[in-house]
Amino acid sequence: MKLLKIGMVGLGRLGKRHAENLALRCPGAKIEAACSLDPVERAWAKTRLGVEDLFEDFSAMLESADIDAVFIASSSAFHTAQTVAALKAGKHVFCEKPMGISVQECLAVEEAAEVRPNQVFMVGFVRRFDPSYRYAKEMIDAGAIGEPFLVRSQTVDLDEYAAFQVGFVPSSGGIFLDMNIHDIDLARWYLGDEVESAYAIGGSFVHPEFAQVKDADNTCALLKFASGKMADLSVSRTAFHGHDTHTEIVGTKGILKIGMTPAKNRVEIFDLHGARVPCVKDFYERFEEAFRAEAMAFVECALNGDAPIVKARDGTEATRVGFSLAESFREGRIAIVRR
Amino acid sequence: MKLLKIGMVGLGRLGKRHAENLALRCPGAKIEAACSLDPVERAWAKTRLGVEDLFEDFSAMLESADIDAVFIASSSAFHTAQTVAALKAGKHVFCEKPMGISVQECLAVEEAAEVRPNQVFMVGFVRRFDPSYRYAKEMIDAGAIGEPFLVRSQTVDLDEYAAFQVGFVPSSGGIFLDMNIHDIDLARWYLGDEVESAYAIGGSFVHPEFAQVKDADNTCALLKFASGKMADLSVSRTAFHGHDTHTEIVGTKGILKIGMTPAKNRVEIFDLHGARVPCVKDFYERFEEAFRAEAMAFVECALNGDAPIVKARDGTEATRVGFSLAESFREGRIAIVRR
Amino acid sequence: MKLLKIGMVGLGRLGKRHAENLALRCPGAKIEAACSLDPVERAWAKTRLGVEDLFEDFSAMLESADIDAVFIASSSAFHTAQTVAALKAGKHVFCEKPMGISVQECLAVEEAAEVRPNQVFMVGFVRRFDPSYRYAKEMIDAGAIGEPFLVRSQTVDLDEYAAFQVGFVPSSGGIFLDMNIHDIDLARWYLGDEVESAYAIGGSFVHPEFAQVKDADNTCALLKFASGKMADLSVSRTAFHGHDTHTEIVGTKGILKIGMTPAKNRVEIFDLHGARVPCVKDFYERFEEAFRAEAMAFVECALNGDAPIVKARDGTEATRVGFSLAESFREGRIAIVRR
Amino acid sequence: MKLLKIGMVGLGRLGKRHAENLALRCPGAKIEAACSLDPVERAWAKTRLGVEDLFEDFSAMLESADIDAVFIASSSAFHTAQTVAALKAGKHVFCEKPMGISVQECLAVEEAAEVRPNQVFMVGFVRRFDPSYRYAKEMIDAGAIGEPFLVRSQTVDLDEYAAFQVGFVPSSGGIFLDMNIHDIDLARWYLGDEVESAYAIGGSFVHPEFAQVKDADNTCALLKFASGKMADLSVSRTAFHGHDTHTEIVGTKGILKIGMTPAKNRVEIFDLHGARVPCVKDFYERFEEAFRAEAMAFVECALNGDAPIVKARDGTEATRVGFSLAESFREGRIAIVRR
Repeated sequence: MKLLKIGMVGLGRLGKRHAENLALRCPGAKIEAACSLDPVERAWAKTRLGVEDLFEDFSAMLESADIDAVFIASSSAFHTAQTVAALKAGKHVFCEKPMGISVQECLAVEEAAEVRPNQVFMVGFVRRFDPSYRYAKEMIDAGAIGEPFLVRSQTVDLDEYAAFQVGFVPSSGGIFLDMNIHDIDLARWYLGDEVESAYAIGGSFVHPEFAQVKDADNTCALLKFASGKMADLSVSRTAFHGHDTHTEIVGTKGILKIGMTPAKNRVEIFDLHGARVPCVKDFYERFEEAFRAEAMAFVECALNGDAPIVKARDGTEATRVGFSLAESFREGRIAIVRR
Repeated sequence: MKLLKIGMVGLGRLGKRHAENLALRCPGAKIEAACSLDPVERAWAKTRLGVEDLFEDFSAMLESADIDAVFIASSSAFHTAQTVAALKAGKHVFCEKPMGISVQECLAVEEAAEVRPNQVFMVGFVRRFDPSYRYAKEMIDAGAIGEPFLVRSQTVDLDEYAAFQVGFVPSSGGIFLDMNIHDIDLARWYLGDEVESAYAIGGSFVHPEFAQVKDADNTCALLKFASGKMADLSVSRTAFHGHDTHTEIVGTKGILKIGMTPAKNRVEIFDLHGARVPCVKDFYERFEEAFRAEAMAFVECALNGDAPIVKARDGTEATRVGFSLAESFREGRIAIVRR
Repeated sequence: MKLLKIGMVGLGRLGKRHAENLALRCPGAKIEAACSLDPVERAWAKTRLGVEDLFEDFSAMLESADIDAVFIASSSAFHTAQTVAALKAGKHVFCEKPMGISVQECLAVEEAAEVRPNQVFMVGFVRRFDPSYRYAKEMIDAGAIGEPFLVRSQTVDLDEYAAFQVGFVPSSGGIFLDMNIHDIDLARWYLGDEVESAYAIGGSFVHPEFAQVKDADNTCALLKFASGKMADLSVSRTAFHGHDTHTEIVGTKGILKIGMTPAKNRVEIFDLHGARVPCVKDFYERFEEAFRAEAMAFVECALNGDAPIVKARDGTEATRVGFSLAESFREGRIAIVRR
Repeated sequence: MKLLKIGMVGLGRLGKRHAENLALRCPGAKIEAACSLDPVERAWAKTRLGVEDLFEDFSAMLESADIDAVFIASSSAFHTAQTVAALKAGKHVFCEKPMGISVQECLAVEEAAEVRPNQVFMVGFVRRFDPSYRYAKEMIDAGAIGEPFLVRSQTVDLDEYAAFQVGFVPSSGGIFLDMNIHDIDLARWYLGDEVESAYAIGGSFVHPEFAQVKDADNTCALLKFASGKMADLSVSRTAFHGHDTHTEIVGTKGILKIGMTPAKNRVEIFDLHGARVPCVKDFYERFEEAFRAEAMAFVECALNGDAPIVKARDGTEATRVGFSLAESFREGRIAIVRR
């Protein structure tokens, strides 16, 4: 069996989960080296995963580790530089979203990836690997709902994480770039078209701190695509029932809805509170299987030389629309999205 | 417009609701007289419904009131005697379930009704008039699930009513005759067959008082029909989420389920308790529209000379099966149901 | 019992249903007179409802019929003139939506109603009388979801009615004024605020004929309220599963969703097509009980001198926002909504 | 990392899936050897999983292969003999259900396992490892529904597999031992009690061939436990919507329902057929994750010396009750279950 030797970059909360998936649930993958600024995280890689080749410095790992691929889950600010360096060093690269913290950064990645068609580059739009989102895509491609013309999609987080998120707004780019970016990618994927104009409204209805950093805790947005198709996107940071990502695709012959109730599993409870469904707590609980499938897809593309279903350009375009939404929200006008 | 002049018998909790339906929501019905042992109830009939001709004594009403029909919602012990007397007096009769408190009583009603084909007699199996139960019957008759061969049905009440119900066991006949009787009727209706043998188990899992009166707070039962078809019936007196009557009809080509979640209305709540549905509180909230439709059906049959969809024999047979279940439960053996 | 003597105006499809509700299901209401241009409709009123005092001309009815109230279900173009004339003649008035076909017309009604505080005027925003929408309002008023700040609401019709609707666009005012107006009213009702700006996009994705009359078959819209609260409204004329009106109210402590699956009743079918729910076919099937409750509310307000929960101003403001949405959609810009 | 070297026995349809789980998705497991009568299956083990040490004969593998454990997915008739031989050879053993084709066989396994407390023996009651079934068990153990006293559970297969199943009745033991056995195990697990008496009815409503082999295509059964607790179990071989295993646990304070609609994933379709959910096709699609977790649990118990949550006695008792149900069904009487 062929093995893909991987250098893992970043071992924070999400990085750890990526690393466990690669090490324990992705046949064909081997974490050969890992890189983290934090000695505790490096120790974890050794103890938990048996990784021996550990680095504090990314460049050092790139130079000296025996790796075919780099899997980047570091802080967003490093994504572009690490991706471009790894591509230049001849490695396959998986990069968590965002691909860059500006459209310019994204374009740099796009360029570096395009000139190396034999290396796999993939950006982490994890929802595309969720079994339900994939099933919907297959149904649409098979004509089940005719021609899709409207995507409604929302990303909703538990309120208990909101206070913690305020501090991340400057580096994450705020609600549109950090959260809606997944919905933007889904809308582009399902509609097969590019966004022409964007309009967003929002407010800090529960946590006024977001207003102070010119962000919001709840937003609504409309996208108009080149063909006239539409997307209706929302974000909420203030849910109490669970992480509630759901998406609806409206076509000329029918509608698909994905995940309308964010059920934790197949259990229902009937008690004093009524008939109820326990809900997933966070994006990782909701997309656990998708994260595994995403890692596996990267490994298989790299081993087999296949093209991934998420390309650098998808990262650029979603980022471009995200910035347009942020601009529309801040300036109170329709933003034109130009390529 | 033709009017059916009705003498109302019994103005307790359910009687009042029947009376309001007849007076306010059943075009063609007029409550001309009412009879109750309780002066407060009689006063209510006058004030709330404008009924002038009020009686303490049933026979007096039958003799002197200007009525075409009698609507009986008195205590169960009086049902048979009042029904037979009213039929003999030439009146149309609606009688709340049970039709009698023994099979013998039921047979007496059946006989009295059969010899008077021009008078309408109807027993109150209200679920047959519920829009969902009727829709299911129409679908089945149209062949939507092939040949139905199994009915699962349960009657479930809120625990808060249980303590109150203990005292009624001697007069109501207990859990099988008071509650499962509706499920028995539905099974006969949907399967179009008669029960051959009956087996029941149960216990007093929450309220030991039921065991003391040789009854139970939760039961399960299996019925075998003459053709080999089956019914799987349950009762619970100890639910916390709501009144939860639901029914499933399994056929050779598909399954219909009715009322699996006893939603109060179309509202869902997403909050700290999860994604949840508020539930109906009692049988009247669940079957409010069915009670109206049932009363209307009686009025229309009486006015137009149509045969009702529930006949005296339905009352007898359901009662017969109910007694067999009680016998099986008490004696721990399969009870043979003979006609 | 007090009786409200009503003159019914317009006996088309919806008019007939209003008339049957008033005549057969609203204790306290009596249709004393009816007015229609169509002799067949007048004959129907006589035969079906026993109305003797029939008119071809509205003014004639207003002058000579013995009526306390007028119930207007005529063509939209007549609503304002008939309402104002009836108010001036001292009658209580119920008027189907729209209250007028321009903001000016609405303001005329508002003015006529305001100077006659002892006469009831009510405009037909029927959803406010639906048991589920009312239950949601009561829960919100009781604080169940904290402070509501976002309403998502959509009105969705079966595709089979679309072709028929093209011809009505000029008189109905198009998709925003004919369909979204209910969602606008709900957003104002639940949020307790007035709209400041409106933005709409849409297209003719299934029926290009709508584009020819500068209308659309599917639209999405965002409203920004004076306080910063938001509404996200959609319309579709092209559904295949059923009439699918649903609404979501997001608050600072929880979310209420109303009617997310437009179930016909409580029946589910499990067969070759999966696990499925039959859906309601049209707005009348969905809101049958709401239409009855609405008529009853009007009758009770008129008899008891109570103020209705829907006022003339509600009609004006919803219309004003509807025109703003149409303007935004046609001109591709954000429309400012001024009072 | 410690490795458990496994000898795989049987590589039919389910055996292949077990083998893939062990080889690709269970860190710590290594299939060191495999045994199958079929050369094609042995070739598959080599090509697909890289297993080099291949055997036609089970005893030969037991003697010469370098293995710590045996994983048995051979034909039911071999289960007991292979299990006992492997235990005697000092191996840990996982055995697919049934543990034996008679109560005597099961007791032989029980005995062989009991005297070797340092070897892990586990029987494949896979539902206990399903995330939803486990979550329900944890909730019950935490007191979420008070004291559980009734389990309703059913196993339902697609009609398209029925014809194929007729031929297996003699070796599988029929509908109660092949299908209901899972529900029996769940009832024992959730109620923590042993069955005292069993009653079953059933028929061949769709496929008369089952009657010819004294089996049925649909059955209903009631179990009475020593403490008076109850189980209400059903099987159907004739569903059209999907594999529909679901279970309900009723307690003194609430009810848990597991898997009431066998949704394939989180997608809903709204089209001409209504609002519908695509369903899982077979038990493997439904329990894919449970099969992986089951294999992983065996590996971890064997590596860590933990006691498995399913013991030999569970296999014996479920089999005992299954035979009692078959006896009750065939003889038309209540069967007493003796230990």
